[in-house]
Amino acid sequence: MAGNTFGTLFKLTTFGESHGIALGGVIDGCPAGLVIDEAFIQSELDKRKPGQSRITTQRKEADKVEFLSGIFEGKTTGTPIGFTIYNTNEKSKDYDHIKDSFRPSHADFTYEAKYGHRDYRGGGRSSARETASRVVGGAIAKLILKHYNININAYVTQAGKLKLDNPYTFYNLEDTYNNPARCPDEKMAQQMFDYIDEIRKEGDTIGGITTCVVKGCPIGLGSPVFDRLEADLAKAMLSINATKGFEIGSGFNGVNLKGSEHNDEFYTEGDFIKTKTNNSGGVQGGISNGEDIYFNVAFKPVATIMKPQNSIDKNGKNVIVNGKGRHDPCVLPRAIAIVEAMAAMVILDHLLINKTTTL
Amino acid sequence: MAGNTFGTLFKLTTFGESHGIALGGVIDGCPAGLVIDEAFIQSELDKRKPGQSRITTQRKEADKVEFLSGIFEGKTTGTPIGFTIYNTNEKSKDYDHIKDSFRPSHADFTYEAKYGHRDYRGGGRSSARETASRVVGGAIAKLILKHYNININAYVTQAGKLKLDNPYTFYNLEDTYNNPARCPDEKMAQQMFDYIDEIRKEGDTIGGITTCVVKGCPIGLGSPVFDRLEADLAKAMLSINATKGFEIGSGFNGVNLKGSEHNDEFYTEGDFIKTKTNNSGGVQGGISNGEDIYFNVAFKPVATIMKPQNSIDKNGKNVIVNGKGRHDPCVLPRAIAIVEAMAAMVILDHLLINKTTTL
Amino acid sequence: MAGNTFGTLFKLTTFGESHGIALGGVIDGCPAGLVIDEAFIQSELDKRKPGQSRITTQRKEADKVEFLSGIFEGKTTGTPIGFTIYNTNEKSKDYDHIKDSFRPSHADFTYEAKYGHRDYRGGGRSSARETASRVVGGAIAKLILKHYNININAYVTQAGKLKLDNPYTFYNLEDTYNNPARCPDEKMAQQMFDYIDEIRKEGDTIGGITTCVVKGCPIGLGSPVFDRLEADLAKAMLSINATKGFEIGSGFNGVNLKGSEHNDEFYTEGDFIKTKTNNSGGVQGGISNGEDIYFNVAFKPVATIMKPQNSIDKNGKNVIVNGKGRHDPCVLPRAIAIVEAMAAMVILDHLLINKTTTL
Amino acid sequence: MAGNTFGTLFKLTTFGESHGIALGGVIDGCPAGLVIDEAFIQSELDKRKPGQSRITTQRKEADKVEFLSGIFEGKTTGTPIGFTIYNTNEKSKDYDHIKDSFRPSHADFTYEAKYGHRDYRGGGRSSARETASRVVGGAIAKLILKHYNININAYVTQAGKLKLDNPYTFYNLEDTYNNPARCPDEKMAQQMFDYIDEIRKEGDTIGGITTCVVKGCPIGLGSPVFDRLEADLAKAMLSINATKGFEIGSGFNGVNLKGSEHNDEFYTEGDFIKTKTNNSGGVQGGISNGEDIYFNVAFKPVATIMKPQNSIDKNGKNVIVNGKGRHDPCVLPRAIAIVEAMAAMVILDHLLINKTTTL
Repeated sequence: MAGNTFGTLFKLTTFGESHGIALGGVIDGCPAGLVIDEAFIQSELDKRKPGQSRITTQRKEADKVEFLSGIFEGKTTGTPIGFTIYNTNEKSKDYDHIKDSFRPSHADFTYEAKYGHRDYRGGGRSSARETASRVVGGAIAKLILKHYNININAYVTQAGKLKLDNPYTFYNLEDTYNNPARCPDEKMAQQMFDYIDEIRKEGDTIGGITTCVVKGCPIGLGSPVFDRLEADLAKAMLSINATKGFEIGSGFNGVNLKGSEHNDEFYTEGDFIKTKTNNSGGVQGGISNGEDIYFNVAFKPVATIMKPQNSIDKNGKNVIVNGKGRHDPCVLPRAIAIVEAMAAMVILDHLLINKTTTL
Repeated sequence: MAGNTFGTLFKLTTFGESHGIALGGVIDGCPAGLVIDEAFIQSELDKRKPGQSRITTQRKEADKVEFLSGIFEGKTTGTPIGFTIYNTNEKSKDYDHIKDSFRPSHADFTYEAKYGHRDYRGGGRSSARETASRVVGGAIAKLILKHYNININAYVTQAGKLKLDNPYTFYNLEDTYNNPARCPDEKMAQQMFDYIDEIRKEGDTIGGITTCVVKGCPIGLGSPVFDRLEADLAKAMLSINATKGFEIGSGFNGVNLKGSEHNDEFYTEGDFIKTKTNNSGGVQGGISNGEDIYFNVAFKPVATIMKPQNSIDKNGKNVIVNGKGRHDPCVLPRAIAIVEAMAAMVILDHLLINKTTTL
Repeated sequence: MAGNTFGTLFKLTTFGESHGIALGGVIDGCPAGLVIDEAFIQSELDKRKPGQSRITTQRKEADKVEFLSGIFEGKTTGTPIGFTIYNTNEKSKDYDHIKDSFRPSHADFTYEAKYGHRDYRGGGRSSARETASRVVGGAIAKLILKHYNININAYVTQAGKLKLDNPYTFYNLEDTYNNPARCPDEKMAQQMFDYIDEIRKEGDTIGGITTCVVKGCPIGLGSPVFDRLEADLAKAMLSINATKGFEIGSGFNGVNLKGSEHNDEFYTEGDFIKTKTNNSGGVQGGISNGEDIYFNVAFKPVATIMKPQNSIDKNGKNVIVNGKGRHDPCVLPRAIAIVEAMAAMVILDHLLINKTTTL
Repeated sequence: MAGNTFGTLFKLTTFGESHGIALGGVIDGCPAGLVIDEAFIQSELDKRKPGQSRITTQRKEADKVEFLSGIFEGKTTGTPIGFTIYNTNEKSKDYDHIKDSFRPSHADFTYEAKYGHRDYRGGGRSSARETASRVVGGAIAKLILKHYNININAYVTQAGKLKLDNPYTFYNLEDTYNNPARCPDEKMAQQMFDYIDEIRKEGDTIGGITTCVVKGCPIGLGSPVFDRLEADLAKAMLSINATKGFEIGSGFNGVNLKGSEHNDEFYTEGDFIKTKTNNSGGVQGGISNGEDIYFNVAFKPVATIMKPQNSIDKNGKNVIVNGKGRHDPCVLPRAIAIVEAMAAMVILDHLLINKTTTL
């Protein structure tokens, strides 16, 4: 259980370091007969790709995925899908200065302590560059979810202190990709863009919150008591670099309500059973109830800043760590692609598991 | 992958319904040679037991665990530990009125939809009564963690709108069990008690937040990229009934800080590498860094209220659901035992996994 | 991964020692809505129960299973099925003499070396008494397989040197339980009975071979490359106490044939694709092909003999170990129930997995 | 659980089809700090490589492994090791004739039936070409086992009807690679070579048996009751293409012995506890006892023969299938590398698991 496989029936195993030869992975358990839309997969990767605008890192990576197996004549065969994404623009020289130093709030120290031997270049395995492989897995999951009319949309709901006032139902989520801040509210998107750009010029960074919405999820997904749908979503989200929190439905604010205010009343709408409110966030007892699933994910401010910081080196000596390299002042605009990818894999996995629940 | 097993090397599998014959479970992977302190295990169960004070449910359950295997002459043998907790005080009659109705924000509807056939009495498998088995697993995990001087303490940091102002470092966590509200601040504990009691009289319920602190966790636990320590903690917490959110370290509030404010500087203290602040919450890159691990868990208000609510029955007809039975106005005082138990199992599991990381 | 759980989607976890309080287990992943035929389950247990005839151990055990959860109004609910089988006839005194000694070809030494602390009474966890729990899991699996018209029959094909001459197709497998030797050939059954009885009087033991046949298995079960159907069957069989070998289809004898003799030609019979011969044993490329699945399992002679044997004790001193207690001179007549149970669980597990193979 | 991952703590996931772009895999859980001896790994691949002599297939494949991650400055970092082996000599044209036909005793039919869509070229995923990836995993496992002085040697003990008369203890296993038949007895090796060559000229094929011996395995490996060491070995071996049987220690022949003949007496040799005989094959109660572990694996005759065979096509019409392409008349000389690789991974996995057994 070395930690690099995600999922139970639809399984993604990833490999690769930031400045190694290649990233990649294996998708095992993808149902046979799926038409692989490579353009769609690449477009998903592009949503996460660096260099999309002034407010993301200028590192240039093609992030071109190559499939090595599991697809024949354009369709999946049910056998494992191996893929690679070669690293093309690694500037390892940028990292010589941290070879022996531990950057604050990075994983340099913990990897060194745990493994004894680490690839320090660009954070190595701890770099968010690894998440490109997740986006490939998520893109294929999305292709399957389309067959079930399940849609997943994430957007930036908070960047630093700038925060949308309304819940997701207020916005047209299709507008998210109209702007580089990835916020469906045009005015706020511009404010976020300007703010992130200002932070970038300061050499500082900010964090933020993304909201993710799953529409069309069938009733019945989730395997209580431990593999509740929200538990698997929480794990998926906290497995993404830089995340510090997850909440579903009413989340942390729900604790301010009384039961009589918080409970979601059932009613019927034609043949369907619905709830009048959705504080549950689409899950009850760990199982999807057919309402929209929505949740928030908190990302801390990016650890790499362009300012000198006090730290220590391997020998415990005090050092000054200076920021170098090409980094994001705020990961949120790129991170939503990863949040969607992980959510897609969780939903698909439970969709497959659920096929075996009854006789 | 039916969802009732937790853990990788230290594995707990649970079974049992609220009003069935017995709850219980199997603990597999418990190292051999552990002295089983049954009094300690029972005391952990008592922390979760109903009927502890006026502000918890008055259902009377002995919650007496019986071990059936895996222990010989008072010590574990490395073989699986089977155990049962017989239900003694089930009043199934209390539930006839909901046999065919779906209580708002309960799992009645989703279980019915998923499985087609459910034990409706007291929520059946979806009842938090199931968590008694988790406390047994957690208690045994804690016995092992004691060998490593790892301590885990959870407390109630918010009950409804009543909220502690200070971080955990401000309180003496040993004071938590001095009062029925399970809050380490005496004055706030009294306020919480009074408030919960008032809510109880109203026939309503509230939610709340628990903070959990792990002290003494060694450096190096966690298996990136997917099985990060915080990812497994998040899953563990969101697998508990009624939880809606998880945050570690700076959590959702951390997004308001800049990187230069949020980063935790390293320094040396004797032979130890420490951080000046701990916004990371004891984990960096998914791996424990030796600092305190602390996180919050949000619980929604209890779904069962003593007020009439609109809902529907199996046939989609409108019904009024009335609250009956013996329920908690606020689960927090009892829930902290469950939070600790789940945290203990996560930490132990990673402790065992970490033994295999290097040659 | 402590080794006491079997299966992927239909999972059995067992616990219990030979002379502990109880055996038992948890079945997780059993589809909801299955009518539980308790009489059938008990009849399966009775097939494995000691004391069935003069040629099996005279230990008297009721082997009465009690279900604690997961069943409501006679049908499964999709939640875990916990069960216990209390030990009623343990004579622990019989084992004082081996408390500190290692019986030849038993697990006393390896358990002591591995775990450091063991329940020596009756072999503890290493006793085949544990397999009663497997029979419960297998019986429930069989109830589901009946819905698919899949039948599993095992019989004794060799006891010591006495061996049936013909393949399984020659016999009426329904005749197996007409005699205590569990051999479908009446004449050979009598010879086996007499031979085992003679061996019993000598205070010695013999081994044997069981053949197991699965009829009605649908095409498509098995998950190459590692979880081939025959690989999972092999593991299942070698996980049974005292087994030393597994072969499927032509098995070890198949190596004497040339490819031109061994290959199974395809032909059509109405709408069905069949093979003229079945050297493949019903699996090709790790996947069932619709033909009968048949395999052999070799059991070594029972290790406990009623004769003095040289051995050593914990301190490495020479000792004489004398056989005591009530033991089987040959496990085969009881073992076929276990072989069937394990096979049923493997087939069912792959049946469930296979529901997720295509879109 | 799509079947392409092997192992629990040391995990190999493979991908790739016979005539696709590349084979490859991911090794997760390899301890950090291991010096990667690439020459050794390549030499292991060469043992399995086609074209080694006249009696193996003449398909020319470089079988050159490229490592993409997990290794830095020549040592493992504890992160996943991704690798590829590009296919260079695929002659897909050779397979047009079987695009729509089902070759007897191949996996064409079962893959078609299970997945609905298959890569028919060269058997696609069902080709033994996939096992090259296993040899990479096994080679790395062997590098770790060397640190523990554990050695694994397999050899050809039977080819068709030609069979070595003596047990493994009679031969010098270092002699195995002195000849292309991979048999440690020089005279028999020549006979086997001649026989296989003759079979090749006939256009026919044969099967055989390999014996594998593990020396130096520590006491205590194996996780009863289900993950017994021999159970995991059995699964590993039956997961290899064309295998039909597995036996450990006395195996199928052991059933002819009485308990008094079969039991392995314990004695002490200095500080070590040993057994006088080793019918157990190095495992007792599912756990290694420190003696040599030895087992046999039966391989059926190769299904592809150079003779016309009757079969059917996708539409159920009768067809004649002619053998084309470059194939092995007997897989045994190449298969022993695969047997060793799988054994190495099983032993290593249990070695890692065993680190967590006691406090």
